[in-house]
Amino acid sequence: MASSTTVGVSREVGQKLEPRPLPMWLPAILLPLAASLVLHPILYAASTSPTLPLPSLVQDFTRTLPAPTFPALEANVGFSIVAFLGMLYAVPWMGDAFVAKDLKGLDLLKGVHGTVIPECMGLPGAAGYIGLMIMFIPFPFSKYFEDSLNGWGIEGAAKNGDLESLRMEQAVGRRTFPHQELALFLSSILSLLIATLLGFLDDVFDIRWRHKLPIPIIASIPLLMVYYAEGGLTTVVMPIGARWLFGNTVNLGPLYYIYMSLLSTFSTNGINILAGVNGLEVGQALVIALSVAFNDALYLPIWPRLAFGEPGALNELVLLEGGPVLRRGSEELIQRHLLSLYFMGPLIGVCLGLLYHNWFPARVFVGDTFCYFAGMAFAVVAIQGHFSKTLLLFFIPQIFNFVLSVPQLFGLVPCPRHRLPKLDPATGLLQPSTVVFASPPKRKTVVTLKLLAMLGLTKITYDKDGKSIVSATNLTLYTLILVYKPMREDKLTMTIMWLQFLGSVMAFFVRYGIASLLYDGDRR
Amino acid sequence: MASSTTVGVSREVGQKLEPRPLPMWLPAILLPLAASLVLHPILYAASTSPTLPLPSLVQDFTRTLPAPTFPALEANVGFSIVAFLGMLYAVPWMGDAFVAKDLKGLDLLKGVHGTVIPECMGLPGAAGYIGLMIMFIPFPFSKYFEDSLNGWGIEGAAKNGDLESLRMEQAVGRRTFPHQELALFLSSILSLLIATLLGFLDDVFDIRWRHKLPIPIIASIPLLMVYYAEGGLTTVVMPIGARWLFGNTVNLGPLYYIYMSLLSTFSTNGINILAGVNGLEVGQALVIALSVAFNDALYLPIWPRLAFGEPGALNELVLLEGGPVLRRGSEELIQRHLLSLYFMGPLIGVCLGLLYHNWFPARVFVGDTFCYFAGMAFAVVAIQGHFSKTLLLFFIPQIFNFVLSVPQLFGLVPCPRHRLPKLDPATGLLQPSTVVFASPPKRKTVVTLKLLAMLGLTKITYDKDGKSIVSATNLTLYTLILVYKPMREDKLTMTIMWLQFLGSVMAFFVRYGIASLLYDGDRR
Repeated sequence: MASSTTVGVSREVGQKLEPRPLPMWLPAILLPLAASLVLHPILYAASTSPTLPLPSLVQDFTRTLPAPTFPALEANVGFSIVAFLGMLYAVPWMGDAFVAKDLKGLDLLKGVHGTVIPECMGLPGAAGYIGLMIMFIPFPFSKYFEDSLNGWGIEGAAKNGDLESLRMEQAVGRRTFPHQELALFLSSILSLLIATLLGFLDDVFDIRWRHKLPIPIIASIPLLMVYYAEGGLTTVVMPIGARWLFGNTVNLGPLYYIYMSLLSTFSTNGINILAGVNGLEVGQALVIALSVAFNDALYLPIWPRLAFGEPGALNELVLLEGGPVLRRGSEELIQRHLLSLYFMGPLIGVCLGLLYHNWFPARVFVGDTFCYFAGMAFAVVAIQGHFSKTLLLFFIPQIFNFVLSVPQLFGLVPCPRHRLPKLDPATGLLQPSTVVFASPPKRKTVVTLKLLAMLGLTKITYDKDGKSIVSATNLTLYTLILVYKPMREDKLTMTIMWLQFLGSVMAFFVRYGIASLLYDGDRR
Repeated sequence: MASSTTVGVSREVGQKLEPRPLPMWLPAILLPLAASLVLHPILYAASTSPTLPLPSLVQDFTRTLPAPTFPALEANVGFSIVAFLGMLYAVPWMGDAFVAKDLKGLDLLKGVHGTVIPECMGLPGAAGYIGLMIMFIPFPFSKYFEDSLNGWGIEGAAKNGDLESLRMEQAVGRRTFPHQELALFLSSILSLLIATLLGFLDDVFDIRWRHKLPIPIIASIPLLMVYYAEGGLTTVVMPIGARWLFGNTVNLGPLYYIYMSLLSTFSTNGINILAGVNGLEVGQALVIALSVAFNDALYLPIWPRLAFGEPGALNELVLLEGGPVLRRGSEELIQRHLLSLYFMGPLIGVCLGLLYHNWFPARVFVGDTFCYFAGMAFAVVAIQGHFSKTLLLFFIPQIFNFVLSVPQLFGLVPCPRHRLPKLDPATGLLQPSTVVFASPPKRKTVVTLKLLAMLGLTKITYDKDGKSIVSATNLTLYTLILVYKPMREDKLTMTIMWLQFLGSVMAFFVRYGIASLLYDGDRR
């Protein structure tokens, strides 16, 4: 279910699109901004560090800098801007090399012949992202930022020069260095890199559908292995109503690992099967990334107190109410969601940059590489941050699309090779595509289709006698939208992005409204 | 300097070679062996673990098992056998898919037309290796093996139920879990994966030589970042003779990071420029891997005491002399070299498996992917295990080849596109290839060549007058060998592997003989 077909495309077919023009003033504004965001925490740390003596002129300057509240997050925003600019400028520059190596696709929804454009541009996206995340490692994990709020500094205790307490301090200091988070961070990058490599191999070798399904599971192995080696929790909190049966918490043991690997399979394929329309893969990933980032931001101690006055609504956040000295549990929550934010920021940057070139009429395709990469990114932050259930709530359109597709995916209704919409050349609007029955369909197919039609989920055409079904619209989210209102390709992508946004709004309502009735305190 | 040319090869040119036949009895013997090596430590750990209750029948069986001395290493040998078998059987199975995607090369040294065979088979090698290393993570790093010699268990202290000492124990226990090693291990895999991905991109996109050089540096970034974040040492021990000037140790600071990244550049390109003859890339990597593994094994407490009776010869090992209670420093040394062994085992397996198919007449090429991957593997173990200088000693033939190539690499002597030997179809022997001068060469070239010829490093042909140079043999190690004795391709590979072996023997002599005069105690 790739975003395009690379089969049998020769360079003669299809017209060539010029790359979308790039504004030259954008980097002039954004690059200095990114640089200052990255440099501020570095300079501040250097100015306060006794081990890094700076020239006095620099010292005088850095001493005037305000202390960064979240130094790593600040640098991360800088990295995100770099990711955005990088995609914006690298993608058109790389296009020809990809086309020359047969990594090109035919955009079927562009007039008679379609257009041939570079495929698999998720690869530079993912590679750039991973490169930036690796460069970012020292910010959350360096001992040089340990004095900051973000850090894990040791206080007092040994200041009186007592050797015994110094030893204790060193032991505790080692303990408070977030080794476990670093290992999870590294294994997340490893998982992302494997997902990228396998996605690229898929784009190059056109791996068959059933061989593809386990790819996200393979990619999630590093994360699971490290989770296991570090003795990670496999206990889940039960909803209040189920506690009489299971107790407050249930240790899922190995099942929890299966759940985690299935999460990556779901988030990856969820994006991969809602694809094929310009900008759709990147657009939905963008909205999901923004939703995850907003959810993470809710846990940072940056909000006015009033917002969390009501216990039960955002009740993890109530833990922050104790004043500047944070309680342990809530501090851990902040760290978890900071880590998740670090991953989402550059992802948002990459998505924005890719979307510029992937938007209708697309200049590039992002390929399966992007779907694997982005889906995996969501899975790793959810596993790392222990909010997999919340993540699933952000996938409402993908879940709907998957459930709707089930009859076709599992053969109850025939599934054509592509279920892309049809272009009406006269109006330029997309029409719903149909599955056509040369002979009357089987009884189970008829029952399924009639049931779906009754629910308004497909539109059936009968033969002249009105008895036998001759066609039905395909069972996908975008076909369904087009059944009700044919529209241009960009409008369709925009509509689905709006649906994704509304789904996220609903998700927040469910998560912080309804869930508090089912759960209390920390949950995953 | 790839092992082949993929330029302008059409399927018509060259004959097709059938894959080398595979013995069916080999897996029948090796698979059960591998399985028992992997299962033994698992079963033993399960039988002694209070948290993993086994069925009594299994318990009865596992209780009869002897305790594994090095549980992770034992499993690692099992993984290495799997790596070997995997390569042996996967490579021929994948060949066609690679050829179909234009990942094929023309073997120039095979008769008139040469043969066309799959290129880039280092990719499945590297991918399989990395997959196995990820599956291996729990063995050295799981808390379930913590009771073993290999572990980092906590002893005594809190057994009396004293809460204060329990807290202390937990702090120390956390500290003794090898978080830092896990992070380094993960970042090593990350570096290997990046090297593999970039190598594959190189094979697909034919990256230009000067663009290729920084690839290993990029791939080493995760390792350096983690090394930095964890506050790794950047201090080196000075040779005894230099201490009056620099002191006992010198903190190289940022220079140490540059040194580490250059190490990966060297080990990668060292293998990559000594390539082009069937089996050569894999063969040299195999000998180096075996040398590193043997060096690692020297540090394990498995040798009879007598062998290390002489202080100064293997003087780190003298630390082991204190009886069963190992001194702290030496225990750390064991851990370091165990980690290195874990990486070398499966690499040896992969090399052996690949070599079977890559041996003359080669059925597959391994591509730049293999060179990047193998070179990076050596760099990461040397950085992780702090034995980079020892590693360099194992690269004597590569260093010689590089130094000999310098006049051609830097334009002092013209460098043809390929410096492969020439096949004499009459005898089937390889002859040294030459650089031919259409017009009399420049003075600096003449001086260089005459100097080299005087040293016996090249063979010059003069024109009839005996004045002007018309040709000189190329400046590579294998050309030099062929100058003295033309031989068949497999004999040439074998000769270089023998040279590599002799180099390693010399390396051990230098490392444990001469170095003890220059250094004392632990060094890097």
